[in-house]
Amino acid sequence: MSSNPRWRVAVVGATGMAGQQFLVSLSNHPWFELTTLAASERSAGKPYREAIARSDGSSTWLCDEVFPEQFADRKVVAAPELDLSNVDLVFSAVESDAARQLEPIYAAEVPVISTASAFRYEDDVPVLIPGVNLEQAALLKRQQRERGWKGWITPQPNCTTIGLVIALAPLVRQFGLERVFMTSMQALSGAGKSPGIAAMDVLDNVIPYIPQEEEKVEKETRKVLGRLEGEAIVPLDLPVSATCTRVNVRDGHFESVVAALAREASLDEVAGALAAFGREFTDLGLPSSPPELIRVLDDPYRPQPRLDRDLNDGMTTVVGRLREDHALERGVKFCLLSHNTKMGAAKGAVLLAEYLVQQGIS
Amino acid sequence: MSSNPRWRVAVVGATGMAGQQFLVSLSNHPWFELTTLAASERSAGKPYREAIARSDGSSTWLCDEVFPEQFADRKVVAAPELDLSNVDLVFSAVESDAARQLEPIYAAEVPVISTASAFRYEDDVPVLIPGVNLEQAALLKRQQRERGWKGWITPQPNCTTIGLVIALAPLVRQFGLERVFMTSMQALSGAGKSPGIAAMDVLDNVIPYIPQEEEKVEKETRKVLGRLEGEAIVPLDLPVSATCTRVNVRDGHFESVVAALAREASLDEVAGALAAFGREFTDLGLPSSPPELIRVLDDPYRPQPRLDRDLNDGMTTVVGRLREDHALERGVKFCLLSHNTKMGAAKGAVLLAEYLVQQGIS
Amino acid sequence: MSSNPRWRVAVVGATGMAGQQFLVSLSNHPWFELTTLAASERSAGKPYREAIARSDGSSTWLCDEVFPEQFADRKVVAAPELDLSNVDLVFSAVESDAARQLEPIYAAEVPVISTASAFRYEDDVPVLIPGVNLEQAALLKRQQRERGWKGWITPQPNCTTIGLVIALAPLVRQFGLERVFMTSMQALSGAGKSPGIAAMDVLDNVIPYIPQEEEKVEKETRKVLGRLEGEAIVPLDLPVSATCTRVNVRDGHFESVVAALAREASLDEVAGALAAFGREFTDLGLPSSPPELIRVLDDPYRPQPRLDRDLNDGMTTVVGRLREDHALERGVKFCLLSHNTKMGAAKGAVLLAEYLVQQGIS
Amino acid sequence: MSSNPRWRVAVVGATGMAGQQFLVSLSNHPWFELTTLAASERSAGKPYREAIARSDGSSTWLCDEVFPEQFADRKVVAAPELDLSNVDLVFSAVESDAARQLEPIYAAEVPVISTASAFRYEDDVPVLIPGVNLEQAALLKRQQRERGWKGWITPQPNCTTIGLVIALAPLVRQFGLERVFMTSMQALSGAGKSPGIAAMDVLDNVIPYIPQEEEKVEKETRKVLGRLEGEAIVPLDLPVSATCTRVNVRDGHFESVVAALAREASLDEVAGALAAFGREFTDLGLPSSPPELIRVLDDPYRPQPRLDRDLNDGMTTVVGRLREDHALERGVKFCLLSHNTKMGAAKGAVLLAEYLVQQGIS
Repeated sequence: MSSNPRWRVAVVGATGMAGQQFLVSLSNHPWFELTTLAASERSAGKPYREAIARSDGSSTWLCDEVFPEQFADRKVVAAPELDLSNVDLVFSAVESDAARQLEPIYAAEVPVISTASAFRYEDDVPVLIPGVNLEQAALLKRQQRERGWKGWITPQPNCTTIGLVIALAPLVRQFGLERVFMTSMQALSGAGKSPGIAAMDVLDNVIPYIPQEEEKVEKETRKVLGRLEGEAIVPLDLPVSATCTRVNVRDGHFESVVAALAREASLDEVAGALAAFGREFTDLGLPSSPPELIRVLDDPYRPQPRLDRDLNDGMTTVVGRLREDHALERGVKFCLLSHNTKMGAAKGAVLLAEYLVQQGIS
Repeated sequence: MSSNPRWRVAVVGATGMAGQQFLVSLSNHPWFELTTLAASERSAGKPYREAIARSDGSSTWLCDEVFPEQFADRKVVAAPELDLSNVDLVFSAVESDAARQLEPIYAAEVPVISTASAFRYEDDVPVLIPGVNLEQAALLKRQQRERGWKGWITPQPNCTTIGLVIALAPLVRQFGLERVFMTSMQALSGAGKSPGIAAMDVLDNVIPYIPQEEEKVEKETRKVLGRLEGEAIVPLDLPVSATCTRVNVRDGHFESVVAALAREASLDEVAGALAAFGREFTDLGLPSSPPELIRVLDDPYRPQPRLDRDLNDGMTTVVGRLREDHALERGVKFCLLSHNTKMGAAKGAVLLAEYLVQQGIS
Repeated sequence: MSSNPRWRVAVVGATGMAGQQFLVSLSNHPWFELTTLAASERSAGKPYREAIARSDGSSTWLCDEVFPEQFADRKVVAAPELDLSNVDLVFSAVESDAARQLEPIYAAEVPVISTASAFRYEDDVPVLIPGVNLEQAALLKRQQRERGWKGWITPQPNCTTIGLVIALAPLVRQFGLERVFMTSMQALSGAGKSPGIAAMDVLDNVIPYIPQEEEKVEKETRKVLGRLEGEAIVPLDLPVSATCTRVNVRDGHFESVVAALAREASLDEVAGALAAFGREFTDLGLPSSPPELIRVLDDPYRPQPRLDRDLNDGMTTVVGRLREDHALERGVKFCLLSHNTKMGAAKGAVLLAEYLVQQGIS
Repeated sequence: MSSNPRWRVAVVGATGMAGQQFLVSLSNHPWFELTTLAASERSAGKPYREAIARSDGSSTWLCDEVFPEQFADRKVVAAPELDLSNVDLVFSAVESDAARQLEPIYAAEVPVISTASAFRYEDDVPVLIPGVNLEQAALLKRQQRERGWKGWITPQPNCTTIGLVIALAPLVRQFGLERVFMTSMQALSGAGKSPGIAAMDVLDNVIPYIPQEEEKVEKETRKVLGRLEGEAIVPLDLPVSATCTRVNVRDGHFESVVAALAREASLDEVAGALAAFGREFTDLGLPSSPPELIRVLDDPYRPQPRLDRDLNDGMTTVVGRLREDHALERGVKFCLLSHNTKMGAAKGAVLLAEYLVQQGIS
């Protein structure tokens, strides 16, 4: 990224759920000016408000936040024809198949931060979480060099991975981790919107399976927590066992976690490590940054998705029910809550962009 | 129990949720004749239909099953004044505090099968699950002898324990178990009715804490799976780690389980052990018995509470998503579903009674 | 219809939600043998079980009833290529656009009973509700004659209309009606499955609009309650005002109704007329018939969708909260519940077929 | 009320749901200083945080807003022993029975604004809605004179009445109204918290009855829209027919309304009257006032409780689906949404207090 006074950014996949959330996250942003909205051919040429309308004219705006009127009349461009000459940075919110095709085209010219999984598992592609593993941004140079791109691609992790990794990172660093078990109760919005989860299916129910989710969480956790050696990531040697389920909650992924520490630590030490984590990052005071990466609650009835997901506008991982686990040596267990469409998606991507800009990484 | 041609049974706590379920389970029972309905002083002397009515005359009948009209005009008696001379067996569905007072009074004369936890953890009290540990009924003799009772007390386990233990029992027996991790997503009906879970609290939410539930599950699992030595139970030396949460599901406790086997076994062997479990018990063909204690499903989207809880009228534990776990040596993991107000409560208690009668245990 | 000893029937649209419900309604039917399952080209040639499977092999079976294994291996045929030489009757469960194309092809040869709205509003097409307006079946002759068909088409009314009309019919006949106001709270299953209502949209919410629903209810009510003059229906001159909303309920359309009677009647007379309605029809004892078309409840807290929708397997309209209305002269008001996927869809269509067969209408 | 620079106010019933909402509405209020928290004997003497804690120390704070720490250590006083010498105004949030006893004691000394229904139907007690009928405040003088009080009591209307009346008021004034039909779908929070609606009862359900609610709505609507003659209110001669139901929505009462106007008006005129209503009140710019009393939406899918209840912090009544009704002469119909715990409870009461203070009514 060059040192513009104000960055011109594009959102690709702007009409979908994640795309709409980017609009919210970028409206009135102090550093980023959202100049370009791109979507599929079907939407191209229409004003944004029309592109997200049903045939009867009603709106499909999905966010709880008010529709940002400033973008209403912005004409949507076709994603494959995005003119990059006026764009400094692309936020990609398309599905994985489209991402595989489009993102390299963009990355040839400008940096791409993506919510899609298409490139997450490639060796030269870092999966960055603000405050956790920004040193892995070093891979971006290798990516540019090897692929001959002016820009690069960095995808966000899966929205279930992100809260887990934020909570595990301080434990890995301070105590070491030997193994982790996680059962998630994931929110509906994590399944996206088209078609998303049918109300008929999830009412009075739990759905015990989310295709490929467990594999993603296990693999991404090891990668994000991995060690940078030169320009390569050595995944953390950490057995992670994930069971991912869907419950009838709108937003906020809840996770029940059991972990074996590598060395003895009291619950107070663990709580302290969690609460103190990321201070050096939050102290940067980036525009989308929460004041704390992790909040630890004492009330045993917390965290609860409805009550806690919006803490610090959904950018803080909330941990509760911290206690010893007696089925593992040096076992601890806790519950966590992470807002899957805030820190876990668009706003998390914007925060990452802020960091990379602030660090002069481009 | 004596060898009556037809057993006269009483339900104590008949107006509450568990009590109502006993009425359903006992209406038209081939062996048991429900002769006595007992409840608190407040209900005493009223016809049963009136005892469960609101002040405006509307009914508080809670079960999905149709109200059994045959009991509508039966006069409710006060629990402390239950006349045991006409009763061969008591089903107790009162709260734990009341159970501690009332059940010994009844047990002095007749057998008591209880859904309350009051006596679950006493050394001479077996917690029996049909098909799992009926040999522990041997403790009843000791209980009678030591306490000087003609009858005895046997409480059911917690409704979250029961499905877990049914699924673990075949694994313990065939392969041995080294440790178990369980995260539950429990149904609303498990919290009872007065006041139960407020709709406001659980809508769009997960409640991560159920007081004392985890301790109960951990302790009861070891006891039920324990070994009978003489007239004492030696709890199984099995570390169990439970996290118990509440989700917005009416009936059916869902559990995510990870277990380390003591010896190598393929998934097919594990599935086979589960599916075959309890055959000798179900072959007895007891009136309330399901044809299978465990059903193993292949569809990865199952079990689901709404779709699977009523299998075999809620008396079968449904297991799915059986797969290897790589965070443990010889790890397996699976999900299970157990109907908390059928096998996990009144109908499970009736099934137990049928077994004890059939075995001539009294 | 000819006088076969056993009718060979086809279900078109067999893989969709309504189609699946036809399979349930027709499995082990005493008069109808489901010989042919038809669906779109995409499903053609596959065994039925495979035709309703996801790409990962899991099932999309939607009904709460157990999958009828007897049809699992039946090969699905392409709807446009349905061989009518082995079929005596077609149940059509396709979308309206497909119905417009396919149903006339079938009707040229055999009778068609449809859940689609395509032909509902045509002058020579009766919309028949068992017990309400079967005299309008006289139009079928005209339809055959004018269209040159050997068969005919009769569509069911909208699933919101059906409960309303069943409750209004006895009032029209005994007291006359001057105007009707209805606000519905409709169940999710009424919106179908592909894609249906997204859970994200309806959780903690009411959706105040269902496209075209209000117009359908208003128009169909007047048609079904209309008078047969020769071979034409004169719609009832009844102003009907409908507001149709969607709530987070799986099955069972709930309706709040206010009506002005044309002549004075006491609440007892009204209740009596409702409860007695359709006796001559239910006395026929048809295989899918409920013992009563309408059940009137006194408990002010009833009907409730979850508690009352399954009364008589969803074939009875449940009325409650009957009271005077003081904002209209001779006003009465009440709430009603009608099972939208039982009486309001496939099983209602099967009941209609039974009646037509029994009456020798073909 | 005297002309203090800053009003010292008490909240009675401070630990309940409505009471908690008063704390939120009054924290950092520019005019009112919450000096006294009163509740039942059980809470008296405890710091507020402790008074709302469960026995295990966890909090029962119910509002979505963050707990106002400034009140955490404030000692709760017993309601009957409230010292009025330091209080200029009492907000009463107790149940109706307690209100009947306590409120006259307070009113003898200071003004009382109440959410309870105890005094709503007395002749000398006005039920005031900001922007609608503040001229009826004239009754307060009569109340003081006749009852010999220095203060007075003014209760808020029922939370279902308030949105209905706000929408009807402009129609009454500009066009006249002949009759009104309303079916409500009310939120869970309207039922309060102890015990409130059980989740088991309302999941996958609609509850068609709320005791006494319909009578309250009908009677209060006529009173609030009535005419002041001297020091008496002549209720509006308007037949109102209400059906009140409960749905599984946390906050926001949704109402389907049909009304007959007294003179012809186009939909545009009606929409204009609604949108313009209360301008003279909102122009006062009171601290808790919304910028608009009514918002009219064109999107037919709106209002929706989840999407629209928080408009202007829940202080605006949202109207949508405005259309002609053909079952009434000069009929119009629409849907409305009103936040039952904001405008419909504590914050509405605070707004009313602001108005009375600003007008010098005391």
